[in-house]
Amino acid sequence: MIENVVIIGAGNLATQLALALVEEGIRVKQVYSRSVESARVLAEKVNASFTNDLSQLLPEADLYVIAVKDSAIQEVLENLSLNENQLIVHTAGSVPMNILEGFTQNYGVFYPLQTFSKSRKVDFSDIPVCIEANHPSSLLKLEKLGKRISSTVNQINSDERKTLHLAAVFTNNFVNHFYAIGAEILQVKKLDFDLLKPLIRETAAKIENIHPLEAQTGPAKRNDKAMIGQHLKMLQDKPEYQKIYSFVTESIFQVHQK
Amino acid sequence: MIENVVIIGAGNLATQLALALVEEGIRVKQVYSRSVESARVLAEKVNASFTNDLSQLLPEADLYVIAVKDSAIQEVLENLSLNENQLIVHTAGSVPMNILEGFTQNYGVFYPLQTFSKSRKVDFSDIPVCIEANHPSSLLKLEKLGKRISSTVNQINSDERKTLHLAAVFTNNFVNHFYAIGAEILQVKKLDFDLLKPLIRETAAKIENIHPLEAQTGPAKRNDKAMIGQHLKMLQDKPEYQKIYSFVTESIFQVHQK
Repeated sequence: MIENVVIIGAGNLATQLALALVEEGIRVKQVYSRSVESARVLAEKVNASFTNDLSQLLPEADLYVIAVKDSAIQEVLENLSLNENQLIVHTAGSVPMNILEGFTQNYGVFYPLQTFSKSRKVDFSDIPVCIEANHPSSLLKLEKLGKRISSTVNQINSDERKTLHLAAVFTNNFVNHFYAIGAEILQVKKLDFDLLKPLIRETAAKIENIHPLEAQTGPAKRNDKAMIGQHLKMLQDKPEYQKIYSFVTESIFQVHQK
Repeated sequence: MIENVVIIGAGNLATQLALALVEEGIRVKQVYSRSVESARVLAEKVNASFTNDLSQLLPEADLYVIAVKDSAIQEVLENLSLNENQLIVHTAGSVPMNILEGFTQNYGVFYPLQTFSKSRKVDFSDIPVCIEANHPSSLLKLEKLGKRISSTVNQINSDERKTLHLAAVFTNNFVNHFYAIGAEILQVKKLDFDLLKPLIRETAAKIENIHPLEAQTGPAKRNDKAMIGQHLKMLQDKPEYQKIYSFVTESIFQVHQK
């Protein structure tokens, strides 16, 4: 059973995961971050010790969670000096599990499929936790741990996780950018972004029960050329948004013409 | 005071608006639709008479609401035979108010900024209603009517309304299409779209309090070229999604580089 962990990283995901673990009675023994100040801030929140030196990681924890940005995982691994039986996971969507091979005998992935901010507390119980491990016994441990913080724990292999992550980029990163474009379009005319919020809420709420293909409305689906032309004209000072408008409009039309 | 209305149209918006009006004690006297069957279905829901003949509209209603698709508004107007003092509004985001000029002395716009489906009941109290009228007395009437069904009624001119509608296309139509792309990406690998729903909920919920520029995360913002390259490769069988991925990624990068 995993009763205590060391968290390597102190960013958005590390912060929210550490808070969720502690809330469910799992002890965070130590927080590592390259920045000692970041490590301290998170460590204080979860009553842990902290360090900015990977050689100073506590040698006895049930689980070491690497929650740093993808490009830093390799460097963290190369600087770990742990007993090779220790269980280590990373938390990344697009990094295969086998990046951990060779650094320890027991490894896996613990990927919470969600967008995190340091300042915004999330309800972990609602978040799908995607797990994978190189040994059945480790998988079982991760499953039990996942179930303590979330109601949805799925065994997802590295290839599937990459696919999930790509879909998440469209439905989170790109969607959020479109919220930002909407806000910018309104701001130019000094209109309040709050006007769009009920629409944004309903757009997300709708697909809980209606497949997004059925939920689609708008000029692109109707191939309303007059309105599309008007919108493109309104975007003439923003050629990059014009381009996005054209391609997404064409894509909606193609999908719904079938 | 507007106590009763005739609804011209029986689509998604007409249906939800009629239901909301009736719920607040405003009488829907009659429903018109080009399809007599559609007119009948909505009329039965709101206990109104119905017709598919514009010359048969009841001559005495406090308000005539044109809630047909944009491209049909002109045709409806040309076939109306009402007293020229009757108050008529349309409900379209991108159609200027003055399309009604010449058909009646009293006209305006009553635009609820939301996405509607016939089958999904919406809470109108949350929806911004954007109003405009050619006379102050009509504007006041529309404001009072708006406030009976919604907590947010704003006077928005035709130009501003067009801007709102363009922003809504990004934040609703395009966003919903990205949900559909996410679903399609998962489906190819037989992964459940439900896995993405908590992320979609949180993405929308986040910007209630955090500006979307601040809420942005992901490989595009970080300019994570390795992950972007990997994603583009995964989309190689879908060149149109590849193109969208590239342009939106570039746009996010540009915005956040500033």
